[in-house]
Amino acid sequence: MADGKRTKSNLRAEVAALKRERTLGAATDLFYEKGYTNTTLDDVAAQLGVTKPFIYTNFGSKPDLLVEICRVGVGSALEEVERVLALGEPDPQTLRRFIPRYVDAVLRRQKNIAINIREEKNLLPEHASELAELRHNFMARIELLLTKACAAAGYKLPDPNVTAFAIVGAVSWSTFWYSPQGRLSAQDLSDRMTEIVLNLVTHNDRTTR
Amino acid sequence: MADGKRTKSNLRAEVAALKRERTLGAATDLFYEKGYTNTTLDDVAAQLGVTKPFIYTNFGSKPDLLVEICRVGVGSALEEVERVLALGEPDPQTLRRFIPRYVDAVLRRQKNIAINIREEKNLLPEHASELAELRHNFMARIELLLTKACAAAGYKLPDPNVTAFAIVGAVSWSTFWYSPQGRLSAQDLSDRMTEIVLNLVTHNDRTTR
Repeated sequence: MADGKRTKSNLRAEVAALKRERTLGAATDLFYEKGYTNTTLDDVAAQLGVTKPFIYTNFGSKPDLLVEICRVGVGSALEEVERVLALGEPDPQTLRRFIPRYVDAVLRRQKNIAINIREEKNLLPEHASELAELRHNFMARIELLLTKACAAAGYKLPDPNVTAFAIVGAVSWSTFWYSPQGRLSAQDLSDRMTEIVLNLVTHNDRTTR
Repeated sequence: MADGKRTKSNLRAEVAALKRERTLGAATDLFYEKGYTNTTLDDVAAQLGVTKPFIYTNFGSKPDLLVEICRVGVGSALEEVERVLALGEPDPQTLRRFIPRYVDAVLRRQKNIAINIREEKNLLPEHASELAELRHNFMARIELLLTKACAAAGYKLPDPNVTAFAIVGAVSWSTFWYSPQGRLSAQDLSDRMTEIVLNLVTHNDRTTR
């Protein structure tokens, strides 16, 4: 009886999670293809073969969808930095391990990150503040990781803050131009971007000032 | 009489140019602050102390404003590449001369470039195609410049295409985070970004493969 109850309650949670995930996926595809203001909740519902009230009940309003999509975008990159920082003090190989994981996280959440950048002005004010805070945290953590990892490897960065923005810019930009149907596989892009970013920071063993 | 006519006709052209420039400036500020879909032509008219028909007559519709703002954004960067390529074959110092000019062009047109990135899905289809073509040209020209300038300086780039996107990403990203009211002057950012980009490419004299 107790077991029966637990199974039932797990299934409910699984169904709820599936509904959320599929709703988020459909909204992400549509906001990415058509833009947020050109997409209605009816479009999202039609994509899923459900009605608009289904989405309201199981997820919430259109702004709720937008902020959650953006959270997933910043969150995926932030998770990778936190994971590396949680391993303890960086060593000389930390950047070489971290960068491909970061590039992969960005490519995996390419649509979320592009939507996050494009739709900033369409977020509700409280959601915009929340995401600005999340981005600020991400930049602070990546700057910390960069500073520590470069110190461990013997490189001095002239300006870790601008370097962090340059790296995040170089990698995040791929959300606008990279297509899995193009010349490069995600693995190719990850390999090349890793070399480029490593070149950018490791050069400083020669040009410290 | 002929002189009188010419003066009159120049003044007309000057007035028309002034009206266009001020309309474009007001629309750029508003689209940047509030987003394209949250801005009405009435908002733009109010900012200029004119009426909406004034804007229709002297400039055109809201989509006309958007595409022109985006053209100016891509155009400012494209102009700098064309200017350098027009000087003839690149030499070892070409990149050091070009990069600060490119960074300055991006910072000068920060709002236009941010709007161009954000509002892609709100362009009319024919305008979106025109801008995609312009961006494609820009990327092809910057890749050509990069390849020639690196060859002249004795660097071999493992993948000039991805390197070009990484550089454009690192520089263009500043349109989202840089504020002239912050820690760095535009000159400071330009200096630092130039060093970062040069490090990224010049490292390849050691790590060619």
